[in-house]
Amino acid sequence: MIESHTTEAAATRQGRRRLRTRARLTEAAHRVISRRGIEAATIADITEEADVGFGTFYNYFESKEAILAAASAEALEAHGSALDRLTAVLDDTAEVIAVSVRHTVRMVDRDPIWAWFAVRVNLYQEQAEAGLGHRLARDVRRGIKSRRFSAGNVALLCYAIGGAVWAVMHAKLTGALDGDTDQELAAAVLRTLGVSNAEARRIAARPLPEVSQPTREVRR
Amino acid sequence: MIESHTTEAAATRQGRRRLRTRARLTEAAHRVISRRGIEAATIADITEEADVGFGTFYNYFESKEAILAAASAEALEAHGSALDRLTAVLDDTAEVIAVSVRHTVRMVDRDPIWAWFAVRVNLYQEQAEAGLGHRLARDVRRGIKSRRFSAGNVALLCYAIGGAVWAVMHAKLTGALDGDTDQELAAAVLRTLGVSNAEARRIAARPLPEVSQPTREVRR
Repeated sequence: MIESHTTEAAATRQGRRRLRTRARLTEAAHRVISRRGIEAATIADITEEADVGFGTFYNYFESKEAILAAASAEALEAHGSALDRLTAVLDDTAEVIAVSVRHTVRMVDRDPIWAWFAVRVNLYQEQAEAGLGHRLARDVRRGIKSRRFSAGNVALLCYAIGGAVWAVMHAKLTGALDGDTDQELAAAVLRTLGVSNAEARRIAARPLPEVSQPTREVRR
Repeated sequence: MIESHTTEAAATRQGRRRLRTRARLTEAAHRVISRRGIEAATIADITEEADVGFGTFYNYFESKEAILAAASAEALEAHGSALDRLTAVLDDTAEVIAVSVRHTVRMVDRDPIWAWFAVRVNLYQEQAEAGLGHRLARDVRRGIKSRRFSAGNVALLCYAIGGAVWAVMHAKLTGALDGDTDQELAAAVLRTLGVSNAEARRIAARPLPEVSQPTREVRR
């Protein structure tokens, strides 16, 4: 839906200008929310960061909630689809999850602005169509079906795993936790899903495939 | 420290009145933050809820942060020490953790005001002296030492487990997750610590000892 809208708008010069301004606003929202949090961020902060007039905002978005939803969908979806491309070649669901968890936690060092934003908006919202929650649920279901993971309440497992990744990212961002934690967290997540400790550690220690594409399509 | 201050103040009538007003303020803060969250709650909301004058607030607390810290320490410490009393008779660290997790998640139904407050202030703050974070770390260390749990980074495991419990409580409070989840979550937490799935399920399904004392000492 965003796709076709984008394609149509891009067909005219005015449409292209609109898309650029819209992107400047969502990128500004991304940075402002990353720095200040959702509640403290104001529309004025966002338009100032984007260097557009305050009134311009309402030509693009109805409210702070609307731009938050757009910025959040873009940032999380870009990361999620990068993970999908990266893990498409992997046969083992346990490895898919380990690679996804490791790359997500590593974003704290790779792109702290993204990581703060993702933590502020809760990157694992189960309800959101974009983002990581529904991808995690898909992978957990697949692993239970193939008996790679022990059976369980998928929604509960996803909240538990999402909460664990969220808390570790938050602790790393605030400096409460340091050092390399991605392998250890991935192993903990696999154990949560019923993989034995020895195997979880082995899978979490495999060489990590590199993300070739930028994880955010829209660059700052 | 709170103890000796309390004992001294209680020795005079004026001291007792001060303690009652202070308790009214922290209980009001508890309810207001539970309903509205930390950022949205104001000092005026708290004094109105406590039915004391706005200016009175500053005879007791320096700032919103100060009353938040006091209310949070009281509510979490009361729950944490109730769990300590309850689990003191248990020999198996895995069961101590299962019982603690189950009782904490059950607070969503037992006392939703407490549960909302605890979720808003993040009940597993590792840094806080009061609360559940340091108790969890103590139990995880004990379980690793006795080889009940597999070895690992204790701080990371505590963030992961705290984040998992937080996310499940939050999902239950918002209605995103329903049904009885305490056994399933406790089993997931034990698996995270390296207990096998079969044993984790067995321990999580044991009869749950009842809390005899109210989990909050200060009643509403």
